[in-house]
Amino acid sequence: MNTYEKRRAALYDWMSREHIDLIMFEDAEGRRDSTVRWLSGHPSDAALFLSAGRRSLLMPWDIHISARYRDADQVIPYTDFERSPFKALRAAAEIFTLPAGSKVEVPPASPYPMVLRYKEVLGGFTILCRDSGAHHEAARARAVKDPGEIGLYRRVAAITNDIIARIEEEAGSGRIAVEQDAALFIEAACRDLGCEGTGFETIAAGPGRSGAIHAFPGYTKEAFAGAGLSILDFGLKYQGYTSDVTLTFARAPLTEAQEQMVSLTEKAYGLALGLVRDGAFARDIGAAAHDFLRGAGQQLVHGLGHGIGLDVHEFPSFSIRPDNDCALCTGMVFALEPGIYDPVQGGCRLENDILLTENGAEVLTRARIIRLPAAQP
Amino acid sequence: MNTYEKRRAALYDWMSREHIDLIMFEDAEGRRDSTVRWLSGHPSDAALFLSAGRRSLLMPWDIHISARYRDADQVIPYTDFERSPFKALRAAAEIFTLPAGSKVEVPPASPYPMVLRYKEVLGGFTILCRDSGAHHEAARARAVKDPGEIGLYRRVAAITNDIIARIEEEAGSGRIAVEQDAALFIEAACRDLGCEGTGFETIAAGPGRSGAIHAFPGYTKEAFAGAGLSILDFGLKYQGYTSDVTLTFARAPLTEAQEQMVSLTEKAYGLALGLVRDGAFARDIGAAAHDFLRGAGQQLVHGLGHGIGLDVHEFPSFSIRPDNDCALCTGMVFALEPGIYDPVQGGCRLENDILLTENGAEVLTRARIIRLPAAQP
Repeated sequence: MNTYEKRRAALYDWMSREHIDLIMFEDAEGRRDSTVRWLSGHPSDAALFLSAGRRSLLMPWDIHISARYRDADQVIPYTDFERSPFKALRAAAEIFTLPAGSKVEVPPASPYPMVLRYKEVLGGFTILCRDSGAHHEAARARAVKDPGEIGLYRRVAAITNDIIARIEEEAGSGRIAVEQDAALFIEAACRDLGCEGTGFETIAAGPGRSGAIHAFPGYTKEAFAGAGLSILDFGLKYQGYTSDVTLTFARAPLTEAQEQMVSLTEKAYGLALGLVRDGAFARDIGAAAHDFLRGAGQQLVHGLGHGIGLDVHEFPSFSIRPDNDCALCTGMVFALEPGIYDPVQGGCRLENDILLTENGAEVLTRARIIRLPAAQP
Repeated sequence: MNTYEKRRAALYDWMSREHIDLIMFEDAEGRRDSTVRWLSGHPSDAALFLSAGRRSLLMPWDIHISARYRDADQVIPYTDFERSPFKALRAAAEIFTLPAGSKVEVPPASPYPMVLRYKEVLGGFTILCRDSGAHHEAARARAVKDPGEIGLYRRVAAITNDIIARIEEEAGSGRIAVEQDAALFIEAACRDLGCEGTGFETIAAGPGRSGAIHAFPGYTKEAFAGAGLSILDFGLKYQGYTSDVTLTFARAPLTEAQEQMVSLTEKAYGLALGLVRDGAFARDIGAAAHDFLRGAGQQLVHGLGHGIGLDVHEFPSFSIRPDNDCALCTGMVFALEPGIYDPVQGGCRLENDILLTENGAEVLTRARIIRLPAAQP
């Protein structure tokens, strides 16, 4: 079995245990789901169906792309169904000759009115749409990377580190002087180094804009890496898998408040990293970082971290919400990213990607808070 | 009243007619909705509530960004509710002192399990989640641009045309030689000209990759504008509003099949443009283009066009699905983009942005199929 077949096989086993007859996955505008790519190799708009009979049916919008990438037992152009998910699901039920009463699971991201229509269109079936069903099972499986994926992560981390080193040099020397210099340097360099592109829109926020969590717009022509705090948050996508790192450039002279922000961010990061181990609850690590910063008079206004993979935000979550019951385990890859933001002082964030191995946390990337000397007048 | 107040006032009037007590809008990861920005000015993650008492309540994730952009009667940090939409909605109902039995409308993009939870959490209220409710009303209102928005569209079109002219020159001279040359030229130039950035990921697909509808990845280091057909699909975002154009570079020598693709694409575009008028059904125009290409032995595998605005795909749709009942009217801005794709010959698409004025269709942008002479050996 190839990688895609193995992944589907695990879901077929789950279907058998749970008595589910058909699962629908959908990757569409407004409802992106990289699980389609993870299960079939097809990287863009498509519906994917898995049947209890252990067969996969892909309906890609673009058949020329699918011809190159897809791994599925059967492929039918989505345009044969006018790209209607209702027609597609009905066709899949017919192709797999599902008997009346079959259990059909649709994506939990499906909008409410859409699910009502699924129920209407497939009157004879039981339509399931659950947060904790097949799609959650796939998300949990995706969180634990297989050896091939770990190899890709080592590769994308190496490329990311290469670019981090070059950016440190360029920013230190002043050749990266405005925000878009940094962002466009990354866009060009990552493709030169074999990446598909960036994993998300780069955020390059100079001292005047770094006080926002996610600066808006992502990058502009404003000054970057001048006196004070500048944030550079970027990710590179290599064969689908994205890194996610944040550097902060701290150029002298810093205010006392800025010095403290740098120090607290580094401490929160070190504290969180020290708690990473197999079996630890991600919520507890998130809470420790939140509590530490609160104790220092600051607030962590976003999650401490998140899994990375084909998506930049995936399982596990480090959310401190009570319903987050995720335990870390060997093979997971995730980003930790404590940060502090102030409308006057600017912002400071430190983010690296971590692989949890049998020997503990392995920090794959080398982002840091970079101290730069005062610029020459 | 300022622009945002006017837009909200129209929705308050609608609420009064429809007896809706509270509307929730949400802009979140996986559920983007630029209507929040359109109604409040706040450009990123937030929940927005409008009450029957004609009051607006914004809950932004990033209060530093909202301080700069937002126009709303009341602002409370979303983090006060742990960014939980359930807690946020319950708080809004309390703040507006909604009596039991009130009608509360949540976004139609809300996932099915989320709406079940809204119903649970707000047991005493009637929760509405409909495709044809308040959010549809806002989408229809957004489709007809006001004078300020039309001014912004003239501006972003002028910038787009400036960049088109420069790219034609750069590609003709060979200075744009690979796909990423074109895409990165646009990223830098649009910011130099005052844009927020690009409106979506640029697609630059050289002769080897233009046969895909949306090339994957969007742009690479492969050759661009060499012999055959190359597609460049990009949009620029100016104060939130995006253009959306597609150029095709047709470099000699072309095969007979490629010549025919170019000719048919131009004809389909001209045919569609000629049908644009106030009161015309967008579906009919879409169907005319589909039928024309089908009659010529080709297939239009995507929609003929779509409205543009704060989103790159918004109302009106030119979909040929039977339920598309949208009629064009003065003030709408939309893109028309017929195209033909072949895995061997490559692809050809022509897309321009059109403003429907009292005098008919005004083509704002100057994209075209650009014929280039054979490269010197």
